Amino acid sequence: MRSDRILLAHGSGGTMMAELIKDVFMERFGDPTLHRMDDASVLDVPTGRIAMSTDTYVVSPVFFPGGDIGRLAVAGTVNDIATSGATPLYLTVGFVLEEGFLVEDLRRIITTMADTADEAGVRIVTGDTKVVERGHGDGIYINTAGVGSVPEGVDLSGSHCKAGDVVLLSGTLGDHGIAVISVREGLTFTTTIETDAAPLAKMCLAVRAAAPDVRCFRDPTRGGLASTLNELAGASGVSITVDETLVPVRDQVRGACEMLGYDVFQVANEGKMVAVVPAEQVEAALAAMKAAPYGEDAAMIGEVAEGPAGRVYVRTAFGARRIMDMLVGEQLPRIC
Amino acid sequence: MRSDRILLAHGSGGTMMAELIKDVFMERFGDPTLHRMDDASVLDVPTGRIAMSTDTYVVSPVFFPGGDIGRLAVAGTVNDIATSGATPLYLTVGFVLEEGFLVEDLRRIITTMADTADEAGVRIVTGDTKVVERGHGDGIYINTAGVGSVPEGVDLSGSHCKAGDVVLLSGTLGDHGIAVISVREGLTFTTTIETDAAPLAKMCLAVRAAAPDVRCFRDPTRGGLASTLNELAGASGVSITVDETLVPVRDQVRGACEMLGYDVFQVANEGKMVAVVPAEQVEAALAAMKAAPYGEDAAMIGEVAEGPAGRVYVRTAFGARRIMDMLVGEQLPRIC
Repeated sequence: MRSDRILLAHGSGGTMMAELIKDVFMERFGDPTLHRMDDASVLDVPTGRIAMSTDTYVVSPVFFPGGDIGRLAVAGTVNDIATSGATPLYLTVGFVLEEGFLVEDLRRIITTMADTADEAGVRIVTGDTKVVERGHGDGIYINTAGVGSVPEGVDLSGSHCKAGDVVLLSGTLGDHGIAVISVREGLTFTTTIETDAAPLAKMCLAVRAAAPDVRCFRDPTRGGLASTLNELAGASGVSITVDETLVPVRDQVRGACEMLGYDVFQVANEGKMVAVVPAEQVEAALAAMKAAPYGEDAAMIGEVAEGPAGRVYVRTAFGARRIMDMLVGEQLPRIC
Repeated sequence: MRSDRILLAHGSGGTMMAELIKDVFMERFGDPTLHRMDDASVLDVPTGRIAMSTDTYVVSPVFFPGGDIGRLAVAGTVNDIATSGATPLYLTVGFVLEEGFLVEDLRRIITTMADTADEAGVRIVTGDTKVVERGHGDGIYINTAGVGSVPEGVDLSGSHCKAGDVVLLSGTLGDHGIAVISVREGLTFTTTIETDAAPLAKMCLAVRAAAPDVRCFRDPTRGGLASTLNELAGASGVSITVDETLVPVRDQVRGACEMLGYDVFQVANEGKMVAVVPAEQVEAALAAMKAAPYGEDAAMIGEVAEGPAGRVYVRTAFGARRIMDMLVGEQLPRIC
């Protein structure tokens, strides 16, 4: 690369774009299909059913404790695919780069993406890069879209929760949101709070193997656990009650939430999975979750009841019951 | 919708985002899979091979004669998938909205997307929306990624061109680039030059049916015909010679290019297809292209020869031969 910063010409479709693709993208993204450089990539899928998902990542800042936008972009879409019970296989990547962005930072992000894709067992098979003028972006935005293979007979949905089911959470709440806000606001803690961003497809496969009647998975990202549970309760026409004392939260995250006035149930996570499981399979599901990567702090946190439809409650440490509301307005913009 | 402009809270994952999805997106995007509101959509694919492609659209302005960013976003990815010989089936959509963007403009763009998807026979099956602060975007950026079904035995690639093959172009060059720059620069012509943005999957299927040994398709978007042919010549290790007198260009586009100092071979198209076809099947391929939607001006424009590898020539009206170079630097930023 002749320039150490991104120029408009890197998005032109001409020689400088070809150079960027060859020197930066191809060096880290090694997939042979991608290297064929056709406009579309042709790929095998083992079954006749696929899962598709997409997310764009606009997190600010792009580097934060424990990760960066590249890890989010790969793990986030992998996790969304995994929620359907699919094995994630292939990712597409679309970059919007702002003129002036450091090529060195781009290399670092691409390296994280390649490493996270390797960890998750997915292939980055095709991509696109656009460049916008200085002041019309924010360094880098990344879209990923992905395809997974859905085994026959698997039909998970947020609308399948039933009275008597148990809600599992794969670990501590709020780590990602607090990690990002702490950099943005210059907060310091005795130890650094790191993002939890991680690919969870192997965890979902393990839970499904242990609990074949699992109703659904959902990763509590933007809007946090509160949005996830309200969506599930609404889609299934049930109520969900969470026992606050059972929800794992790190002390520092709890403290930061109190200081900032955040409800930890509304703070974003990027490496946690919610699973709703029939009661008779919950022990097996929890054991599988705890044994999976990133699942050591998994816990049963609540249960599903018949009604009122769409309502989510929190039972507090003092035995009181309050409503777990979805976020109104905006708490933490640009969290993912 | 309670606000007529996009607010940061519309990207929060909370109640206002749910309202945006319901009132704006769901009203126009009618796919039942999308309406299930799960994090991933599960879909059937008829064969064991899929084609995947992605593109992000950052065109400025977002509305221009004959189309808008929404038509580009659907047609562009449909066309990239079609280049592989696949039937495009499913699209994902990722929006990056800038705080303050008019909800009415968003509705208009979404309507165009839905209409173009209907025309192309593809389903918009899942999506994502992020909102960035005022001054960190440019109204709207759209990523689309797509999946198509590849028939057994089909293997098209830019690396398959052979000496003796003929190059077809499906219509006039330069319309999209000149349509966008004319709005941006306030140029006026006796009649308005409109974008050519259009979905071309049906054209590709018709050409492949008529010419089963077609080597490849490629849509000459950013970088124009020059980038496309240079990429094909490089990937196949051949030379390509284009006869300038055979290339269809509207008089007004030619005039605008002369005035602006643009090489029409380097100007972007969004509704044109290049096909490389063995000589014995070229008459059938051309007839199929002309009979297909958007193909009435299709023409044979050049031929493939053995070497020098990667070189593209233009034979001019006066019999001279010059090199058709790829764009160096940046001519027309934010064209797609």
